[in-house]
Amino acid sequence: MSTQATYSLGLDYGTSSVRALLVNTQSGEEIAAASYDYPHGEAGVITSPHNPNLARQHPADYAAGAKATIKQILKDSQINPDQMIGIGVDATGSTPIPVDENGKPLALHDHFKNNPNAHAWLWKDHTAHAEAAAITAAAEEKRPHLLDKCGGTYSSEWFWSKILHCAKIDPDVSKAAHTWLEQSDYIPAMLTGRGVAEIKRNICAAGHKAMGGVATNNTYPDADFFSTVHPELARIRQSLPNQLHTIADIAGTLSPPWSQLLGLPESTPVAVGAIDAHLGAVGAGIQPNVLVKIIGTSTCDMMTAPLAQKLPDIPGLCGIVPGSILPDAYGLEAGQSAVGDIFNWFSTFSKIPHDQLTRDAEKLRPAQSGLLALDWHNGNRTVLVDQRLTGLVLGLTLHSTPAEIYRALIEATAFGAKIIIQRFEDYGVKVTRVINAGGIAAKNPLIMQIYADILNRPIEIARSTQTCALGAAIAGAVAGKARGGHPTINAAIQSMTGNPIKTFHPNPKHVPTYDHLHTLYTRLHNSFGLPTHTENLADIMKQLLTLRDQSR
Amino acid sequence: MSTQATYSLGLDYGTSSVRALLVNTQSGEEIAAASYDYPHGEAGVITSPHNPNLARQHPADYAAGAKATIKQILKDSQINPDQMIGIGVDATGSTPIPVDENGKPLALHDHFKNNPNAHAWLWKDHTAHAEAAAITAAAEEKRPHLLDKCGGTYSSEWFWSKILHCAKIDPDVSKAAHTWLEQSDYIPAMLTGRGVAEIKRNICAAGHKAMGGVATNNTYPDADFFSTVHPELARIRQSLPNQLHTIADIAGTLSPPWSQLLGLPESTPVAVGAIDAHLGAVGAGIQPNVLVKIIGTSTCDMMTAPLAQKLPDIPGLCGIVPGSILPDAYGLEAGQSAVGDIFNWFSTFSKIPHDQLTRDAEKLRPAQSGLLALDWHNGNRTVLVDQRLTGLVLGLTLHSTPAEIYRALIEATAFGAKIIIQRFEDYGVKVTRVINAGGIAAKNPLIMQIYADILNRPIEIARSTQTCALGAAIAGAVAGKARGGHPTINAAIQSMTGNPIKTFHPNPKHVPTYDHLHTLYTRLHNSFGLPTHTENLADIMKQLLTLRDQSR
Repeated sequence: MSTQATYSLGLDYGTSSVRALLVNTQSGEEIAAASYDYPHGEAGVITSPHNPNLARQHPADYAAGAKATIKQILKDSQINPDQMIGIGVDATGSTPIPVDENGKPLALHDHFKNNPNAHAWLWKDHTAHAEAAAITAAAEEKRPHLLDKCGGTYSSEWFWSKILHCAKIDPDVSKAAHTWLEQSDYIPAMLTGRGVAEIKRNICAAGHKAMGGVATNNTYPDADFFSTVHPELARIRQSLPNQLHTIADIAGTLSPPWSQLLGLPESTPVAVGAIDAHLGAVGAGIQPNVLVKIIGTSTCDMMTAPLAQKLPDIPGLCGIVPGSILPDAYGLEAGQSAVGDIFNWFSTFSKIPHDQLTRDAEKLRPAQSGLLALDWHNGNRTVLVDQRLTGLVLGLTLHSTPAEIYRALIEATAFGAKIIIQRFEDYGVKVTRVINAGGIAAKNPLIMQIYADILNRPIEIARSTQTCALGAAIAGAVAGKARGGHPTINAAIQSMTGNPIKTFHPNPKHVPTYDHLHTLYTRLHNSFGLPTHTENLADIMKQLLTLRDQSR
Repeated sequence: MSTQATYSLGLDYGTSSVRALLVNTQSGEEIAAASYDYPHGEAGVITSPHNPNLARQHPADYAAGAKATIKQILKDSQINPDQMIGIGVDATGSTPIPVDENGKPLALHDHFKNNPNAHAWLWKDHTAHAEAAAITAAAEEKRPHLLDKCGGTYSSEWFWSKILHCAKIDPDVSKAAHTWLEQSDYIPAMLTGRGVAEIKRNICAAGHKAMGGVATNNTYPDADFFSTVHPELARIRQSLPNQLHTIADIAGTLSPPWSQLLGLPESTPVAVGAIDAHLGAVGAGIQPNVLVKIIGTSTCDMMTAPLAQKLPDIPGLCGIVPGSILPDAYGLEAGQSAVGDIFNWFSTFSKIPHDQLTRDAEKLRPAQSGLLALDWHNGNRTVLVDQRLTGLVLGLTLHSTPAEIYRALIEATAFGAKIIIQRFEDYGVKVTRVINAGGIAAKNPLIMQIYADILNRPIEIARSTQTCALGAAIAGAVAGKARGGHPTINAAIQSMTGNPIKTFHPNPKHVPTYDHLHTLYTRLHNSFGLPTHTENLADIMKQLLTLRDQSR
């Protein structure tokens, strides 16, 4: 190993584990990786037998994970600590954490440690749907412009909904919270030991999840608005800064305790964080007009557009936020609330093992099963922005097999993906390339081929299998610009992401059948998803049977 | 055993096996039983990997089954052959069999033995849906009154549709067929050795499945009508008799070869056959205004009304046929194309074994799962009369469990059952009692309790667990009236069926929730089942989630 080489470290906080990745800042070579499974809850998620909407995480797992993975990486790679020029961080979101006046999570106090309301409210927690509706209604009346940039509806998954729900159901926790930190702000704050007042909040989480974007001059909405909803929201708003930061900014340097713990210099800079999918898009090599889909348990669909372009409001999008992905561009976020989660859910109760399901599903032709599904098992994030939707499987017969249902579920997620692309393009954001990243993109060629066939576009697969961690390392390389890193995020992307490792091309024989099925999917989507849509559906089962019979 | 006792024998030809039951004609006591699994196909059903609609049986299994089971019963019971005063037969239907000029099934000729088109076309064969549509269209134009008594639509499951499909796809078989016999006519013909011209055809199969009922003066439709559809149909119509018979009639006595084979006197009378569910209703103790549901792989819902009552046409019913159940009453048949089949289908791919599914589903409260299903996995027999419908499951989340889906499928069959009762009552056929019979009624208290809760009526369980075979034995006891049997079917029912062994009462706490779910089921039923129905469905998933949340 050359002593001239420099490295940056990406810390990627996921739903079940945290991963650390050490990357050569010149080549993007991934030198070492380590991961740590959160010990609390089931696969890192604390749930409730009484409330299927509840999903929390214990913040104690975050520090334990950073310590374990970074130490492991430094040990495995044997690099000189001075060569490690910067750390970047991504985390799930919106995952707000109630903290005390020192920025310490309430869950780390004995009094609150077993109270799920004092834990991190994980992105997929849906307890706050009533509060989301209340905030949406208030904004419609008082600040309609706030909704225009977040798809017209404020989600139960987001920052203010969760804080409001906590205020209503657990006033003790609510009052004890000096402020709430997004997980992507908490991790840099933890590593740098910054006091609450000095924490640099990231525009990515603030913009996409807390209405802090273009509509509010790049800060959060005003406290007066929140006071019309609930006094606690107004109080929390007062605890937030007015300036927001991109990943090109430095959050601080390692605190003395963390420096000592990890054996890294106190001068090691830590970049401002961002939400995992946004840094995943960076790690996948995002550019204008390139859609990056991060496909894991859920899917995030990331686009950028130059700040100079005049963008219309796009109904159903989770946000249009300047600097949320690339510092010099609008970041546009769409997504599907569950993708891999649906496949895993199905495989947990199918007698056929997951890998056999995949092999069996691979042998099926489009429409051969006669099945059609809606992929709303965890609600619909884009374009309906409605968590109170559920999954559907139609076309079942006594001959339907697990592999057929499995394939129908895959197809449903691809039809949902197609509706998102149509929405981008309907509003002038042309999609010229699609890059898929994330675990499913890397590991499941069946799913990628179905996506190529249904989207009727080449599907490129990002070189890295850990684009979120790589994106975080890219931010770390820019944080370390004074120590041999890159001057800008774009320059770091050029050096560190590389070319796609594989491209799936649509099979022209499959395209017409999938186009037909997509029209049927769209009719179900609209019939069950749009409150004013009416049409007769009695031909759908019959069309599916006809397509099935023709496919044989 | 008293030497004065008399016995009759019921032969019950099911989908996978034939059962024989020896019954004391005075008490109804079931003395001995034997069953024989058909060796051909999978669980007795010959299917095709290329055509999921195909379901056939090999007629060789029928003789082998009669021989094996009757010999077994005579051996086990040690009765004097003279005490066995008569044999009755029930079989599946419509299950037509192409036969030669001697009444021998074509499949018993070497040339045809492996040709599925020369086999018995099992009731659940759905290859003939295009032909069903053609016959329906022809009848609408030329003989609209024919449709009025069979629900307005001629089914792909029925006699003429299957014969027409055979004529179109396999002219060799079609031409070789001198006539076609329903399975319920073939078995008595086989046992009595009657020539084709002497075979007494039963009004039950002819009326409910071949439009041979009240609209045609109790014979089949005229050959002129069939010649407008296809010359082969007209030719087959010419091969049929004009007189039809009830189970109170005697088909003949045992042929010398069968007498010798079984060790029974040649004077042993064999009753005219009927379809299994109709004799099942007899064995369950049917009376006017009593609905008997035979719940097995599918469900048959049987009602009777006095011949003197003026009945309107009831849209969606499979038929209104004089003498098809009780000789002195109209027989009304409704049904669901799949019930137990759906539960078995689901259990074949659930990781959780069937008995565990039942235990887990028992612990669930109504609406707790948020799921709602349509039970159309094998089409919808009543009231939509449409085989080209398919099953649906709605409300799926990442938390949905196999037991929840299993319970939703059970509930769906109960909601379907409720729609059938509503249809009877909407047309003046009042249902004062519900007796359930069949394997599921006897063995699955969870399903019966759900039926009681959803139908909001007491559900009585028939004493016999083999009501079809018992009904056949009742017909046998009347065939043997000259040898110490009963003078009439009603008299035999009085002596031989007994009181219900158990009654399930509705749980008043469950009724309002299930009423609500039934309105949602009805909306899905109408939206996917009625070609002109339009309504907005976007509230359904949300109502299910609200009911779910309220149930906790």
